[in-house]
Amino acid sequence: MHLGTIRTTAGGTRAAVRENEHAASWTLLDAADVGELIADPGWRERAEAALAAAAGAGSGSGSGTGIDAATVDTETVDAATALLAAPVLRPAKLVCCGLNYHDHIVETGRDIPEYPTLFAKFADTITDPLADIEIEGSAKVDWEAELAVVVGSRIRRGSKADAEAAILGYTVANDVSCRDWQARTLQWFQGKAWDRTTPIGPAIVTADAISPKDGLAIRGEIDGETMQESNTRELVFDAADLVAYVSQFTELGPGDIVLTGTPGGVGLGLRPQRWLRDGETLTTTIEGIGALSNTMRLTPPAGAPEGEERS
Amino acid sequence: MHLGTIRTTAGGTRAAVRENEHAASWTLLDAADVGELIADPGWRERAEAALAAAAGAGSGSGSGTGIDAATVDTETVDAATALLAAPVLRPAKLVCCGLNYHDHIVETGRDIPEYPTLFAKFADTITDPLADIEIEGSAKVDWEAELAVVVGSRIRRGSKADAEAAILGYTVANDVSCRDWQARTLQWFQGKAWDRTTPIGPAIVTADAISPKDGLAIRGEIDGETMQESNTRELVFDAADLVAYVSQFTELGPGDIVLTGTPGGVGLGLRPQRWLRDGETLTTTIEGIGALSNTMRLTPPAGAPEGEERS
Repeated sequence: MHLGTIRTTAGGTRAAVRENEHAASWTLLDAADVGELIADPGWRERAEAALAAAAGAGSGSGSGTGIDAATVDTETVDAATALLAAPVLRPAKLVCCGLNYHDHIVETGRDIPEYPTLFAKFADTITDPLADIEIEGSAKVDWEAELAVVVGSRIRRGSKADAEAAILGYTVANDVSCRDWQARTLQWFQGKAWDRTTPIGPAIVTADAISPKDGLAIRGEIDGETMQESNTRELVFDAADLVAYVSQFTELGPGDIVLTGTPGGVGLGLRPQRWLRDGETLTTTIEGIGALSNTMRLTPPAGAPEGEERS
Repeated sequence: MHLGTIRTTAGGTRAAVRENEHAASWTLLDAADVGELIADPGWRERAEAALAAAAGAGSGSGSGTGIDAATVDTETVDAATALLAAPVLRPAKLVCCGLNYHDHIVETGRDIPEYPTLFAKFADTITDPLADIEIEGSAKVDWEAELAVVVGSRIRRGSKADAEAAILGYTVANDVSCRDWQARTLQWFQGKAWDRTTPIGPAIVTADAISPKDGLAIRGEIDGETMQESNTRELVFDAADLVAYVSQFTELGPGDIVLTGTPGGVGLGLRPQRWLRDGETLTTTIEGIGALSNTMRLTPPAGAPEGEERS
């Protein structure tokens, strides 16, 4: 099952569900986004009933007129033209993991860490899967393709099995980072917490339909050139490890998101280093989930060099 | 003016206002907490009208019966017995600054930093001014007395003057930290983000009534023994510096909180190092604002040494 949040022509948003990536349409649900949807413990029955009713009503778009229309949502939107927002618009918690790809850690000569490196961001950092990313004041904007884990139920001091059960599903994120600000102090926050710079989406694939630990290709591209290419089976701490670990000190709940870290190939690690340039499009893809595509609208500080640095 | 959030006998919370620390009672306002109150741009007129009406109705406790009772809040609560909650219960953003006390930086031989060291915490870390603090799973629980800045209006890419204007007021916080978890990785988050471990309060003193940069004594005590003692004039980055700096990358709004860092005298810096013990009471006081008093309920991991370490 795919869960998404769709921007409506009226300017609002609606949660929506579709069977899988081959479905021709999304069925709209009675919630403003996936975060609001899954706050209702009965959301899965509602979503399944809506899918069944929409299938009964045919796959055309427009308001459904099929059976059970009085009690079940059957309004559909063509998947080819649906404009998707970030699936969860305002997570209470957005926890990020640093160095976490086995291949990347080995290639940089580091030891495999005993504990995950974690930091926090606020909900305002989130932006839509196809949104332009505007940054004014950084000359070193970098990319970080990441698997995002979406929590579906409350977990506090949970085991790994508890965490597996609490995970709603997975989506794609790019933890776009302002390296000049990030390097100013030991704490990464000020390079990571820029408003509307972390695209998330396009939709959440539920955990019963996909398994990142068994291996999903992850790729980051700039204007079609592959910069990052790895596989989620290389994660040192997998999704359930991270959810269980974080839950030892802070309860996670429906809609909370954990970003799992990025593989090698970021601009900071290239020689020469390389930064995103104004007008370039960043594409972030995970096999079986989908892609983000974000064009950069960058205004570096006065006097800053262009997006490449010979170091 | 003091703004507080009072726990009612019915189990809820109410925003409240009093003239100053000598006022015998708090006047309750029609909002669940100070965060909800100040989201209304007309909050100051409401608070002043309530104070005036309560003064007209006399200073006794109980439901007010004075003039304008139909349109102005005059329900009061005795200040001596009022049970205060954290003034803002769910800030959207809680940004913390690291090393920021001039005297402490000099005494540790470090250079005065060019940029503030910042990290983020979630609203769930907040607890009441008099709440017990329960921590299960850390053997190195430390204290950090801090001045907290509460933002009153939206600020985005603001100047220092903009920041001065956007600050609602000041309160007291203790950024209680689990040093064993904090030291596991380079990022401090996992030592700082434990649920209900950051007491904030007792009330917000508005910026027209107090000026931390002119110097307020700040003190941290354990069971009456002074561990930290400094003055807010020693802040390298003062309240307006921090609000202006953070606003360069993320918009701050009503109810957002910035913790300004702690002076010397934390357990991590003592020789031998010294950690909080189960049953000890941590008292955090800032001149002209008030005090927090929190008793520790600690369950260290199995096999961990008692609260002192000979290193």
